[in-house]
Amino acid sequence: MSALIALLTDFGHADPFVGIMKGVILARAPEARIVDVSHETPPQDIRAAAFRLMEAVPYFPDGTLFVSVIDPGVGSARGILWARSDRHSFLAPDNGILGWAERAGPFREVRAVTNDDLFLKPVSATFHGRDVFAPVAAYLAAGGNASALGLAAVSWTRFEFPEPRVAKGRVLGTVLAIDRFGNAITNLRPAAVAGTFRHRRRVVGPLRSHYAAAAPGRALAVPGSSGFVELSVRDGSFAAKFKARVGDPVEALDAAA
Amino acid sequence: MSALIALLTDFGHADPFVGIMKGVILARAPEARIVDVSHETPPQDIRAAAFRLMEAVPYFPDGTLFVSVIDPGVGSARGILWARSDRHSFLAPDNGILGWAERAGPFREVRAVTNDDLFLKPVSATFHGRDVFAPVAAYLAAGGNASALGLAAVSWTRFEFPEPRVAKGRVLGTVLAIDRFGNAITNLRPAAVAGTFRHRRRVVGPLRSHYAAAAPGRALAVPGSSGFVELSVRDGSFAAKFKARVGDPVEALDAAA
Amino acid sequence: MSALIALLTDFGHADPFVGIMKGVILARAPEARIVDVSHETPPQDIRAAAFRLMEAVPYFPDGTLFVSVIDPGVGSARGILWARSDRHSFLAPDNGILGWAERAGPFREVRAVTNDDLFLKPVSATFHGRDVFAPVAAYLAAGGNASALGLAAVSWTRFEFPEPRVAKGRVLGTVLAIDRFGNAITNLRPAAVAGTFRHRRRVVGPLRSHYAAAAPGRALAVPGSSGFVELSVRDGSFAAKFKARVGDPVEALDAAA
Repeated sequence: MSALIALLTDFGHADPFVGIMKGVILARAPEARIVDVSHETPPQDIRAAAFRLMEAVPYFPDGTLFVSVIDPGVGSARGILWARSDRHSFLAPDNGILGWAERAGPFREVRAVTNDDLFLKPVSATFHGRDVFAPVAAYLAAGGNASALGLAAVSWTRFEFPEPRVAKGRVLGTVLAIDRFGNAITNLRPAAVAGTFRHRRRVVGPLRSHYAAAAPGRALAVPGSSGFVELSVRDGSFAAKFKARVGDPVEALDAAA
Repeated sequence: MSALIALLTDFGHADPFVGIMKGVILARAPEARIVDVSHETPPQDIRAAAFRLMEAVPYFPDGTLFVSVIDPGVGSARGILWARSDRHSFLAPDNGILGWAERAGPFREVRAVTNDDLFLKPVSATFHGRDVFAPVAAYLAAGGNASALGLAAVSWTRFEFPEPRVAKGRVLGTVLAIDRFGNAITNLRPAAVAGTFRHRRRVVGPLRSHYAAAAPGRALAVPGSSGFVELSVRDGSFAAKFKARVGDPVEALDAAA
Repeated sequence: MSALIALLTDFGHADPFVGIMKGVILARAPEARIVDVSHETPPQDIRAAAFRLMEAVPYFPDGTLFVSVIDPGVGSARGILWARSDRHSFLAPDNGILGWAERAGPFREVRAVTNDDLFLKPVSATFHGRDVFAPVAAYLAAGGNASALGLAAVSWTRFEFPEPRVAKGRVLGTVLAIDRFGNAITNLRPAAVAGTFRHRRRVVGPLRSHYAAAAPGRALAVPGSSGFVELSVRDGSFAAKFKARVGDPVEALDAAA
């Protein structure tokens, strides 16, 4: 099969930016198959993009190239990275987006993308998705060799994954993301916590096996699909009812205590 | 040609859920072609999804597999259905989404999808789109036999299509859906009604052949593309001007009276 | 490779309209590849669509067929155009959408699409995307001859591109579009202007090479990716901070003065 390219941007759907990236890719790699991961990440929110990428990576076919363009530093001297794990490869600005993708498999090779022979000319100051990322992705999808992209990178931007803290028999965590349904995805792992969950000190409820185990309109915690505890309201929105936001503190009992 | 899979969900575009489903499908059925029907159905609104599916089905190629994931009961004991009409096949939770799809052609075979050998393990409690629907769709797209999915279903959830009532020379109907342009799609058939249309007793106007037959800003009724009368405002939004909502009463004269 | 069809509509993502167009295309041209340019153009905003099309066209592969359906006159006597430049071809209502696409390359041939043998029957009064544009696009994608569409058109709807005016050493322009990030795209060309940019007489700042050349939260002008000056706020939204809208006056010094 031809190469699979998975796109993650904050370009939204109103502007033609994502379509233009696809045009550039297909002009240079007509056989490429392109899948959208998401283009509605909050503008320039690198952590939200890193979280979505981390969620998506394990489920894509071996050989998929993830192209992630959330790029507040576009046009500046920020670098561009290509990385490869055992199963996948990645193209992204060197700003931390790739920070959590390695949780699905460590990078075996990382390069700084500097070979501007591969770029669309003239390179604009504001749209490297079109002028840099798309043509480099097409080069790779068409069978180009990664060694031509640039030299091996010795360091790059990462931010720590926010692990929960344990204190006095309690596990203290945070809200990592809010999804479309208003579920608050936490950084707590179901096996590590027990008892009643709290969101900003307000009681949510105990861990249930699935949404319908709570009465309609009632809050509950469930083991979410990303491997973390999610706070939900059955047939409703936890985010709306609890005014929840990314970064809010959450807590539960320490299962190991 | 390779199999065509048409996806209808309420997952939206901000989260990576639809992209992840595509990743799972393409990992197992690399040749599959995937088309989005809509992912912005109001969260957990089964009737809105059933209406969209009914609108879309007749226009897709023979052999298309429609995968519909609007699933408030995800993780509970609700069943999963596979169904086949003469032209298409369907995969959906057993919650009524498929209720109106049969209007495009009766189901010839319906099965309860129970063979968890086909699912992604572990099956999460909250994302069967990824863990159940996508891998089963891939199995079918790759040529798998439907008889392996599970036993024939003897009954399943349907809700009645809301047919208009006729009383004292008037046809009494309802608003089935509001589209992006603010048109209110009713359950009235153009040939069955006459005279002036009313929305919640307020006069809208007579049936016109097309939008531009009314003056700009004026309300009118037109024969809509789904085969039902639509209430519209030329170069404007009927929903905004008339504060229209799904379920509102509409009426006209009985053409047969 | 099989034909590439690029879709630009104002149908949004909530309704199944775009999915239905793809169903119709793939039923008649199963090998066609389809790319979305944008479906979130403001409803019935022909100029916004013309601008997006102008931005996108140069970046798509030779042979791409652009199908643009922003069509407030649907169902009326408004015509339908097929046009061909050296690299691309186009299908659109005769309402001005194609007005600026020629800036990427002059049309060599324009036809009025009148051969209703190619349409889906019955043709609805409200959804020519499904009944006219999709089947005609499929006919062309499957190798059909454009001469069968209809006779050569001798005239069609265009609106002038709003060129800046020069007066007393100043260049007076306008905001052409606002993008998702809140950047205001003007009709000023970087090489033609100098000095400090103003938006509705309020000082924005001088032209910088890229966003990060300004301090966070500060306004600046940058050479945008469409070849025009864009007014921006670093790590923020120019549109929000300056209450900018399409059509607002902007000005700078005349570089030639």
